Amino acid sequence: MNEQLLLDQIRTAGHISRADLARISSLSKNTVSLALANLERAGLVRTSGVRTGGPGPAALLYEVHPEAGFVLALDVGKQFLRGAIGDFSGRIRARSFARTRAGSAHARVTELVRLAESLYAEAGITAADITQTVLGSPGVYDPRRDALTLVSGLAGWEKPQILAELRKAFGDSLMVENDVNAAALAERAHGHGRDVDSFAFVWIGTGIGMGLVLDGRLHRGVHGAAGEIGYLPLDGATGTRGLRDARDPRDARRRSGFESAASAAGIVRAARDAGLRGSVSARRVFAAAARGDVRAAGVVADEAVLVARAICSVIAVVDPDLIVLGGGVGQAAGLIAPVERELRRLAPVLPELRVSALGADAVVDGCLAAGLERTWETVTVSP
Amino acid sequence: MNEQLLLDQIRTAGHISRADLARISSLSKNTVSLALANLERAGLVRTSGVRTGGPGPAALLYEVHPEAGFVLALDVGKQFLRGAIGDFSGRIRARSFARTRAGSAHARVTELVRLAESLYAEAGITAADITQTVLGSPGVYDPRRDALTLVSGLAGWEKPQILAELRKAFGDSLMVENDVNAAALAERAHGHGRDVDSFAFVWIGTGIGMGLVLDGRLHRGVHGAAGEIGYLPLDGATGTRGLRDARDPRDARRRSGFESAASAAGIVRAARDAGLRGSVSARRVFAAAARGDVRAAGVVADEAVLVARAICSVIAVVDPDLIVLGGGVGQAAGLIAPVERELRRLAPVLPELRVSALGADAVVDGCLAAGLERTWETVTVSP
Repeated sequence: MNEQLLLDQIRTAGHISRADLARISSLSKNTVSLALANLERAGLVRTSGVRTGGPGPAALLYEVHPEAGFVLALDVGKQFLRGAIGDFSGRIRARSFARTRAGSAHARVTELVRLAESLYAEAGITAADITQTVLGSPGVYDPRRDALTLVSGLAGWEKPQILAELRKAFGDSLMVENDVNAAALAERAHGHGRDVDSFAFVWIGTGIGMGLVLDGRLHRGVHGAAGEIGYLPLDGATGTRGLRDARDPRDARRRSGFESAASAAGIVRAARDAGLRGSVSARRVFAAAARGDVRAAGVVADEAVLVARAICSVIAVVDPDLIVLGGGVGQAAGLIAPVERELRRLAPVLPELRVSALGADAVVDGCLAAGLERTWETVTVSP
Repeated sequence: MNEQLLLDQIRTAGHISRADLARISSLSKNTVSLALANLERAGLVRTSGVRTGGPGPAALLYEVHPEAGFVLALDVGKQFLRGAIGDFSGRIRARSFARTRAGSAHARVTELVRLAESLYAEAGITAADITQTVLGSPGVYDPRRDALTLVSGLAGWEKPQILAELRKAFGDSLMVENDVNAAALAERAHGHGRDVDSFAFVWIGTGIGMGLVLDGRLHRGVHGAAGEIGYLPLDGATGTRGLRDARDPRDARRRSGFESAASAAGIVRAARDAGLRGSVSARRVFAAAARGDVRAAGVVADEAVLVARAICSVIAVVDPDLIVLGGGVGQAAGLIAPVERELRRLAPVLPELRVSALGADAVVDGCLAAGLERTWETVTVSP
């Protein structure tokens, strides 16, 4: 379809004249005019001004119509709910967050609806204007079973009625994206992942996960479970090497000891075992190690070995161009250097290693990117 | 190009008439006739007979010209060299193998040339008729460094002059494919991989490796090192669980203890440690376990745990549809059942597990498939 071709070209260009569209598309000016008229009538394109000062007469410029579609992006975490609304041109129209007080999964859905309503109001639109909602969530959406699975940290969130409630609240177009996968999409759209074909976004914070981009696209796996590196069978490894073997029965459940040992809680436990006192947090352990505290430095060194083993597993399986470290622990200063040292010892080949520069809105921004792609696919398949 | 479209359709159909080509391609009969004449002139297509007995007049049938291209496939192993020649239609024209006596990498190249010459003679062609040579080899070809790397088991095979000698002997079109990747391509073309989008072909024999097919295509990784699961950092794991920690310093080198412990040599060592006497081989250990020998059964059970841990790592990273077990150990009866039991305990999700039915020619057959694809790409890009 000519319309589809032109829409993509207008999107890429931002603002473009009819003559330039004809030139780059190799279509005749008449064909371009006809297609533009169709796109304008469908509300997908609008005129955005006039270009003067160049050779020849002034040229009318076209852009994609920013209000041809709106994406609602939501991020449901243990402590915070975050959200944003983006328009069809990719501009962010509203952004907000709230500390969650929900005592149940059902109450959390209600809080998400309330957050969305505040976003509609801020953006000056209604729920009916949203063309695509994307929810970044712990766990994975398994397309084979049409179910949320492997959720950790959000009690009750796997129940089938929660997915039904979410669909009732946000429509059947609702996409659920694993939160770390969403952050990887943000890294792809705005971060270090922009310039490479393949990268692994390794997230280490209160939980552990990975988003894997191969050939420029998120690789979700057949059950949606690609990147569930919390299940890497590295736990025993900590024992023999004298590293912490901190399988806490309360949070290890079916996951491997790797997630339990290497996540923020595992660092805190290891620091206490090493004799650190007072209000211990992962952040403080890294800060103490940076100040030269030997016990804290030992905890950080052990963490680096654990993380390097996980990354070595990823390299041995897919050999990506780049590894990006994200999350509160992954982004801590002082982690990447010893991780790289250990990888030089372990890994068959060494990809580039970088620390993510994304902030707390990474999941929301990735959901916006995913939702915008989906909207574009929907629109351009049937313009 | 119409020629390209028709060539693909003739290939898919095998034998097809002009009228049927016009129908499925939506091209006019005149356009089809013109394109067929071009393809015949280029030597890519020929008439293959006449279809009679249907409604209407007898129809001339077309097929791809089998002699439009020839693929030479070679497999260089520690003990055997294998090879075959396939024609443009995919038919195998010659097949052979030889026990290697080479004492050096250079001598091995000479043996490969001798094997190739016997194949030319058997196929009734000359070296000049070969349009593509594919060599299945231990180690990986790193396109970034234009070098063979990570070779284990073939002394001197990584040296730059070996690649130069191979190119001199077989031409600049020579492709070097990791041997396990090649076997995975055979599994994709002829085995369990035919009907799935993604699978991991896990090879356990004298060495350990994996070929990963994602979205129907071999995923080689940026350094060619995808699937180098011999580097999975699972070695320590064997210690804590009371499993064998058989890091033999002679063959572990930079690889992890996993490869050393789980390969055929690791099984033999573990069996000796367990008290098995006489001429011990991996095959005999599996046979003894099947007969109820308790010590052999323990070795097999430990092997299954190691293999399950490797597969769990693969699942946690890429979550494929299917895992295929290949190689002398991977295909041993009695391995897959305990591997699956252990995976049920470890893995976040469970893919289908199957044992490869491919034989000793898997690497050669995969090289033929890869070479034929490459020849098709070359031909159809510039017919």
